[in-house]
Amino acid sequence: MYADTIEKELRKQGIKTGDRIKVEYSGVTIEGELMPKTGVGSPDTIIVKLKSGYNIGINFVGTRVTKIAESEGPIKFPAAKLKQDQDLPKISLIITGGTIVNKIDYRTGGVYPLIKPEELFHDVPELSKIARIAMKNPFSMASEDLSYSEWKTLAEEVVRELGSGSRGVVIAMGTDTMHYTASALSFMLQNLNAPVVITGAQRSGDRGSSDAFMNLICSAHIAAKSDIAEVGICMHKSSSDNECQFLRGTKARKMHSTRRDAFRPINDTPIAYVNKEGGIKYNGQYKKISGNSKTTAKTKFEGMVALIKTYPGSDPAVIDFYLKRGYKGIIIEGTGMGHTPVTPSKKEMSWIGPIGEAIKKGVVVGMTTQTLYGRVNSNVYTNLRKISELGVVYCEDMLPETAYVKLGWLLGNYDANEAKERLNKNIAGEISSRTELGEFLV
Amino acid sequence: MYADTIEKELRKQGIKTGDRIKVEYSGVTIEGELMPKTGVGSPDTIIVKLKSGYNIGINFVGTRVTKIAESEGPIKFPAAKLKQDQDLPKISLIITGGTIVNKIDYRTGGVYPLIKPEELFHDVPELSKIARIAMKNPFSMASEDLSYSEWKTLAEEVVRELGSGSRGVVIAMGTDTMHYTASALSFMLQNLNAPVVITGAQRSGDRGSSDAFMNLICSAHIAAKSDIAEVGICMHKSSSDNECQFLRGTKARKMHSTRRDAFRPINDTPIAYVNKEGGIKYNGQYKKISGNSKTTAKTKFEGMVALIKTYPGSDPAVIDFYLKRGYKGIIIEGTGMGHTPVTPSKKEMSWIGPIGEAIKKGVVVGMTTQTLYGRVNSNVYTNLRKISELGVVYCEDMLPETAYVKLGWLLGNYDANEAKERLNKNIAGEISSRTELGEFLV
Repeated sequence: MYADTIEKELRKQGIKTGDRIKVEYSGVTIEGELMPKTGVGSPDTIIVKLKSGYNIGINFVGTRVTKIAESEGPIKFPAAKLKQDQDLPKISLIITGGTIVNKIDYRTGGVYPLIKPEELFHDVPELSKIARIAMKNPFSMASEDLSYSEWKTLAEEVVRELGSGSRGVVIAMGTDTMHYTASALSFMLQNLNAPVVITGAQRSGDRGSSDAFMNLICSAHIAAKSDIAEVGICMHKSSSDNECQFLRGTKARKMHSTRRDAFRPINDTPIAYVNKEGGIKYNGQYKKISGNSKTTAKTKFEGMVALIKTYPGSDPAVIDFYLKRGYKGIIIEGTGMGHTPVTPSKKEMSWIGPIGEAIKKGVVVGMTTQTLYGRVNSNVYTNLRKISELGVVYCEDMLPETAYVKLGWLLGNYDANEAKERLNKNIAGEISSRTELGEFLV
Repeated sequence: MYADTIEKELRKQGIKTGDRIKVEYSGVTIEGELMPKTGVGSPDTIIVKLKSGYNIGINFVGTRVTKIAESEGPIKFPAAKLKQDQDLPKISLIITGGTIVNKIDYRTGGVYPLIKPEELFHDVPELSKIARIAMKNPFSMASEDLSYSEWKTLAEEVVRELGSGSRGVVIAMGTDTMHYTASALSFMLQNLNAPVVITGAQRSGDRGSSDAFMNLICSAHIAAKSDIAEVGICMHKSSSDNECQFLRGTKARKMHSTRRDAFRPINDTPIAYVNKEGGIKYNGQYKKISGNSKTTAKTKFEGMVALIKTYPGSDPAVIDFYLKRGYKGIIIEGTGMGHTPVTPSKKEMSWIGPIGEAIKKGVVVGMTTQTLYGRVNSNVYTNLRKISELGVVYCEDMLPETAYVKLGWLLGNYDANEAKERLNKNIAGEISSRTELGEFLV
């Protein structure tokens, strides 16, 4: 809805969203479709979609707005004829929702998830030159709503697709929690012997600046022809459109709310760079496809694991809250090399007692750092040793989000002792034995 | 303690920490002092301090170790004669603890906080050429233990020092929660009309790679001669020793657990670059010293504010826990543009109900993003609008940690309505009206 005064004026003129209108002011005349108010931008503007497809905001005050024609009703998305080249490798595209598969019908404001291959090939004709594509749509959800039950579904879907002849899988999803999903699949998929490429878009396909098409194309190239046998995220390398990067699923993180190059490797470098033409530059170590081993999935997950960030004044009683709820694991996102408040001026703010209590009750507690970059190390300072001596597992250079997913997965599949034992041992690239140059802020 | 086998062998030879020893292996002979085991590095090595001051680790197996001389007992730190040049500007140096002021006596393993000006001038003789320095030591604590009562003490100390003739203040502290302190002082200090420079070290002064001295020198330059009237953090710009950068206190964050250039500006660019010689390059907008206004402090702080991170599977019942504890404010560190789970497959995992409940009870709830970089925006997606319509305040491009400190400060000084009103309005540089290029990953 536009501001009340604007809505009132539009109603007076009999104008509604989707109508073709003419806007005149100071000698300028603009023709286009009236878009619904998206909430972005000044409340005093109306949004008009030009013939070129671009939207512009126009300050309503002082303009003359007249109707040219009624709305033509919902947009019909044309479908391209589906021609799949049988000589190309087969890959699977699993569509789950998110900005990448949204087409917004501005006439109605409705969002249409794109799920038919025909529609996809209309928007991204390049795809049909890269691979034969089997499309699946196990669910359609926003990524902020996904959790371990969907991760499980996805892992099973990947196993099924790889089992039925696909040489790689692309998963299209929302970006918000993409790195959590990538971690989960990294742990769940066993003997993975194919590229599993997770992708998405920061801007939807109907915007000129959309990254959806290039991300899909680059992901398809990785799935169709790379020799990478890992789960990773394939998104823009920079804010320009020249390359995507394929990031290890356990070492990637969304580091910007809106930029197209929001996903960055943390304590790692990209596994590969890929361009729209299919050029793949490999970079550093990765697991390669070899032999004919069959990919399986170990999808059990213990949901009673919490990720807790500590900070000055943070209340350690929250540990007791989780204990009472029956939680089995806790990952702490501490400060620096893995600190919590230990001897603060208010004694009841020390985390030592509650953490010790949790460990005594058999809860597995892991330590990571909110600096994100770098490594925790329990040996440097006295306070760190006090925490570590309680039995807290210092998780090396593992990301807090990855450690959270890993502990849930471990406790789903092993007893507490074994889960604790495995928490700071590398399984899926989540822990690097040493830090390389060029891993900070790239 | 070294590994048992090593300790046993050393005892057999009558060697203890601090003794001068000779280590021989494959034709190599090394002389130095036996250091205590720090826990860093391989368990099979012993650490020897060379005459040069550097420590080296030597694989114990296969070496011949003999004692040359007994330990000389605790190191005596020499004190330099204190000569303060009365023509130089006066600044205050407030020492609170942390790596920057630690000297480790390797003979005993003890840590000595450096608090006498004489000792400081011995270690950093350059300081006496920059300013006359009044040294204060209101408390000595590790930064992970600091909280709002110490922030209050520091704000009062700054007001007192500026009131007694200092033209700037340097605060030396631990780095872990330095950016929380910098935020707190940014809000607490009113009509600030002088540079307040917070600094620290990632590596202690007895290590060759220490950043302590350069950070102190550069901070003293900013305090003694810059025209900046803001609270900021002055630490290494890169991992080389050529420059420090002065970062706005509300827009800085520790982004690496160990690197010397760990502090980065987020959604901001540095206010200034400064080198050891005192060259200051200003960069972008900042508040300048002007007139003779007197700096005061508004130090009330509401401790009952929580910072909660959401993630897939995060338990919204934690909100109820904080409500029952009597919390007055909550900052959510959501995903992407400010999401929490809204319509997950398990209904009880939706954050909508509990957040609505909190707001109904008068709790102020603010939304930030765990991407750290970028801006939240409640208008783009339906799920975002659902959260925002509950009355959650979307905090623009403010850091989660800064928003947490700000809300505690606001609720300490204003009623809930006014606090809510001011939460997403800029007070101390914490919110930028627009995003500039070059603010991502620099």
